[in-house]
Amino acid sequence: MKSTIRSFDLAHLAHVELLTPKPDESLRFFVDVMGMTASGKEGNSVYLRGWDDYEYHTLKLTASNAAGMGHMAFRATSPEALQHRAAVIEESGLGRGWVDGDLGHGSAYAFTTPDGHNLEIYYETQWYAPPPGLKPALKNQAQRFPARGANVRRLDHMNLLTADVSILRHFMEDVLGLRTTEMILLDNGREAGAWVTTTNKTYDVAFTEDHYRAAIGRFHHVTYAVDSREDVLRAADIFLEHGVHIETGPHKHAVQQTFFLYVYEPGGNRVEVASPGARLMLAPDWQPVVWTETERKLGQAWGLKTVESFHTYGTPPVTDEGE
Amino acid sequence: MKSTIRSFDLAHLAHVELLTPKPDESLRFFVDVMGMTASGKEGNSVYLRGWDDYEYHTLKLTASNAAGMGHMAFRATSPEALQHRAAVIEESGLGRGWVDGDLGHGSAYAFTTPDGHNLEIYYETQWYAPPPGLKPALKNQAQRFPARGANVRRLDHMNLLTADVSILRHFMEDVLGLRTTEMILLDNGREAGAWVTTTNKTYDVAFTEDHYRAAIGRFHHVTYAVDSREDVLRAADIFLEHGVHIETGPHKHAVQQTFFLYVYEPGGNRVEVASPGARLMLAPDWQPVVWTETERKLGQAWGLKTVESFHTYGTPPVTDEGE
Amino acid sequence: MKSTIRSFDLAHLAHVELLTPKPDESLRFFVDVMGMTASGKEGNSVYLRGWDDYEYHTLKLTASNAAGMGHMAFRATSPEALQHRAAVIEESGLGRGWVDGDLGHGSAYAFTTPDGHNLEIYYETQWYAPPPGLKPALKNQAQRFPARGANVRRLDHMNLLTADVSILRHFMEDVLGLRTTEMILLDNGREAGAWVTTTNKTYDVAFTEDHYRAAIGRFHHVTYAVDSREDVLRAADIFLEHGVHIETGPHKHAVQQTFFLYVYEPGGNRVEVASPGARLMLAPDWQPVVWTETERKLGQAWGLKTVESFHTYGTPPVTDEGE
Amino acid sequence: MKSTIRSFDLAHLAHVELLTPKPDESLRFFVDVMGMTASGKEGNSVYLRGWDDYEYHTLKLTASNAAGMGHMAFRATSPEALQHRAAVIEESGLGRGWVDGDLGHGSAYAFTTPDGHNLEIYYETQWYAPPPGLKPALKNQAQRFPARGANVRRLDHMNLLTADVSILRHFMEDVLGLRTTEMILLDNGREAGAWVTTTNKTYDVAFTEDHYRAAIGRFHHVTYAVDSREDVLRAADIFLEHGVHIETGPHKHAVQQTFFLYVYEPGGNRVEVASPGARLMLAPDWQPVVWTETERKLGQAWGLKTVESFHTYGTPPVTDEGE
Repeated sequence: MKSTIRSFDLAHLAHVELLTPKPDESLRFFVDVMGMTASGKEGNSVYLRGWDDYEYHTLKLTASNAAGMGHMAFRATSPEALQHRAAVIEESGLGRGWVDGDLGHGSAYAFTTPDGHNLEIYYETQWYAPPPGLKPALKNQAQRFPARGANVRRLDHMNLLTADVSILRHFMEDVLGLRTTEMILLDNGREAGAWVTTTNKTYDVAFTEDHYRAAIGRFHHVTYAVDSREDVLRAADIFLEHGVHIETGPHKHAVQQTFFLYVYEPGGNRVEVASPGARLMLAPDWQPVVWTETERKLGQAWGLKTVESFHTYGTPPVTDEGE
Repeated sequence: MKSTIRSFDLAHLAHVELLTPKPDESLRFFVDVMGMTASGKEGNSVYLRGWDDYEYHTLKLTASNAAGMGHMAFRATSPEALQHRAAVIEESGLGRGWVDGDLGHGSAYAFTTPDGHNLEIYYETQWYAPPPGLKPALKNQAQRFPARGANVRRLDHMNLLTADVSILRHFMEDVLGLRTTEMILLDNGREAGAWVTTTNKTYDVAFTEDHYRAAIGRFHHVTYAVDSREDVLRAADIFLEHGVHIETGPHKHAVQQTFFLYVYEPGGNRVEVASPGARLMLAPDWQPVVWTETERKLGQAWGLKTVESFHTYGTPPVTDEGE
Repeated sequence: MKSTIRSFDLAHLAHVELLTPKPDESLRFFVDVMGMTASGKEGNSVYLRGWDDYEYHTLKLTASNAAGMGHMAFRATSPEALQHRAAVIEESGLGRGWVDGDLGHGSAYAFTTPDGHNLEIYYETQWYAPPPGLKPALKNQAQRFPARGANVRRLDHMNLLTADVSILRHFMEDVLGLRTTEMILLDNGREAGAWVTTTNKTYDVAFTEDHYRAAIGRFHHVTYAVDSREDVLRAADIFLEHGVHIETGPHKHAVQQTFFLYVYEPGGNRVEVASPGARLMLAPDWQPVVWTETERKLGQAWGLKTVESFHTYGTPPVTDEGE
Repeated sequence: MKSTIRSFDLAHLAHVELLTPKPDESLRFFVDVMGMTASGKEGNSVYLRGWDDYEYHTLKLTASNAAGMGHMAFRATSPEALQHRAAVIEESGLGRGWVDGDLGHGSAYAFTTPDGHNLEIYYETQWYAPPPGLKPALKNQAQRFPARGANVRRLDHMNLLTADVSILRHFMEDVLGLRTTEMILLDNGREAGAWVTTTNKTYDVAFTEDHYRAAIGRFHHVTYAVDSREDVLRAADIFLEHGVHIETGPHKHAVQQTFFLYVYEPGGNRVEVASPGARLMLAPDWQPVVWTETERKLGQAWGLKTVESFHTYGTPPVTDEGE
């Protein structure tokens, strides 16, 4: 099902650009409620990071007419790996060519998924250098612990909507060299979701079938990790106090067993705060766990039924009429 | 300081063989107090694992005259990686040749560190297959959560004592292809400790200078991970109830920031229960964090002074007279 | 709304007798899954307790034709308080007279609520004396921490169903001397639930309107407390592994802010594992928090909708046809 | 050993006045690092509270030449209880008479301990009314969760130094009507410490023998409670980041089993952040747990040795020369 030769070209998921029609409110959400730190600003964009993200940014927040994902990026393991992977992508026909980079990183190779999501890969990066007031007490930490809001630690994973899970999964495996760790296979033989990784995290990207089967690069959510399930619960307390819309959770996913909590940031994008516990993907020959339709109907790990909006809502939003 | 070409030959730390002069008591400790599960038995050895370890075993407990480490092993990422890495080791002059394997895994290449620790690498493995009573509710989990004792989840890392940290570090980097993430450099220019990894965990093996500078392959401790710091605290409660000697902790290390707890199992080997939180080593070009002598004198993260025995005690024990 | 003279006659909720048609399975549930300890046995009953319950028992499990509550009891603060309170109850017309006591406690005054729930109050009690294998390491603890199952610590509170919340609330306040800390008042002026306490816990007993308005002393649930919200989450993991039916949760109640998890024990009775955090009722003049119908429609604290069965199911069960 | 008639006159420990020679720095510590909220200001004093403290304040911070305790206060259970208790104190000869009250509460009866600590009792109080920006989402909570610093929830207990533990214990029991729950009795028959309560918390006040046997009303520490042990660990992370001196902990006390963490606020007063878990004192006839000298030499629950300063340092400081 997946290629037997494992690639080590991509080091990790690096950042996401979120588009927001309410840039000021979105910024306040990410700084005050999520507890993130702004490291820079350029044009219509603010660059943000969790307190233990080592790069200049993991979130680029860009003012826009509509919510959605501007692009997302992976960092390569070396300059050679970047060149190699760019060549493979080029060959797939979905390459868009080299771009100059951005605040925080160097030259990047741009491409799209079969659904039209904008992706980039790059190697040269700028490590975050905390200003005096944000220097950590321990030198092996990127920044001082903020002790503000949900205190999210680091970017964890992305979730995309796709018109065809199987096609996107093959793209992720064959073109990007990611490994599929879990997937959902419906009774009718159609794949409903897949989780892929390039690290020892059990997934760096997830994607599920778009309810509207819109192949317009829709975004489902971005996830920031905290250290414990208790941190997720505390985040829920904080979202409640700030009037942030909690869509579902906290609860434990059956798939991947992540302890999750989903909210909508003011611009309309779905954001997750999550904890994987000590779960890691260490086996080099892990075979995808395949969940059946019957198994998925049991709901989340402890029985919570998935709310309808989780299956239908993404950004940019698609109206039923529009389809 | 470290080679710029990163190796992906070794997938992860796989298991350790501990020698114990009190095999029955040690077994009860690992099963009843640590919450591990015995998967097999052969000769003088019992094979054990944490509830989320995917292989047949991560701990081989072998009756012996004295405590200590029998051997430890890494799993390679592929058959080709195994062959390649074996060849590199062979060339180093520390190879001991291929051995037939063991319960739970196939053919292995054996070698020693410059200190004489016995190591092995292998690829072919036996995935753990839980008997009916231990099948998990969720199919993406190796075994049912035991709900017994400290419920350790998975093997995390090993700590070895060495006569010369610098020599062992170069061996780990150059011969095994591991990356150094943190180290201690004394004012006199001698290295006092180093932490190396082959995964996105920030360390898979640590080693510190043997107080007695004994180059006899001494063992410092093996660590099992739990999901949260609260799980480590609960383990302390349980060790207290069972009369297990707590050497130090729970507390947070400054180096690597691991939340730790050290005890002695009945056979005399030091065992750690720990939680890293959501901390991962994602940067492909991480430069080692170098701690100075002055910094280390500050004690652990929150100020706890390191107990003397932590610097001197290892297995097999060395008496001052014996040196 | 409540009497201004606060009574100190009742020290705390002491125990509950649960009836079960599946006594062996129920016993295994409470011992293996909940982590409770059996302290004695007599006739068709087994006596059980959490590891920090100081009395001989807090749960009496009695074989019966149908699930439900046999009786529940409070311990008085002194022999004098017992006599005084018995006299007040006698006067209410709901007294049933003195009974000889039971395993674990002395003479008790029996009575019923207006709904027919059987209650008792007593003073003389037998402190739990752990056998050698269960002696705790710390002498200020009732018993060794079991490190088994959900490890519930102590009895926390009871929840009863009533045909008329207002009548039962006045009984609890005026006859038993409890204080109402929170309540639900519907738009039509009818009370839908109330929470009363005799301690610094914010509630020792809760009661809500019986969907069937059955005045037959129906039982909603009994709750055992654990130390943290993480302990509740771990209990959920354990219930899942044991195939125990999770009705709802873990989540946080808006009312009383308790972090909750509801399951059905094999006999059919609802059992809760919960954590109140550090919340206490310290104010001597606390005025009941009154929740409106609109507020309750928001669901639980973080938005979870209350499952239908939570409003309708109790023991003994009432069928719609039977009403 | 303790009076058999339990008093219910005092409802709970209400507040403490801390004196600080560095008022601005102390205020920043309590607001930014501890996460407390200032509710008022008068003269040289600022009034502060944890987010779930129901009264106007639980901490009065007063600029002064030296660190130490200005006074501490209990709230009575009723106006009648206040009068009754004042009369009992008057009779003891340690009464100082009625005072007008303060910001946040009404008329109080002032008195001293045999050591000269200033105490007050009162009934009339001002409930905290949060300004618009601090209104909580849930109406059964005193204030919005701050999501800032250590987020301490509520005042928990006080610890005083005394020249004679036995004398102060009898004062606490006989004159104030508190119950002793645990104590330390040295081999020479002298009491070294005692823990007393007027609530279902296992202690509201603790006192230990002053190393200098100074009968000058010295203060050891004030403790604020958080919801979990994880919250205490996070507080340690935050203190580390802010350069706050951590004296000892986090660790678990053997006596009372509190999970503790001690720091010095900038003015020099010792402050504790702690979690008792779900431990409560429910038994009306609890007999004091008496710890022997041998038992105390085992250190804290998990073996941590108590640091020397914990036995000698208090505020105002006493120099060895001064004694």
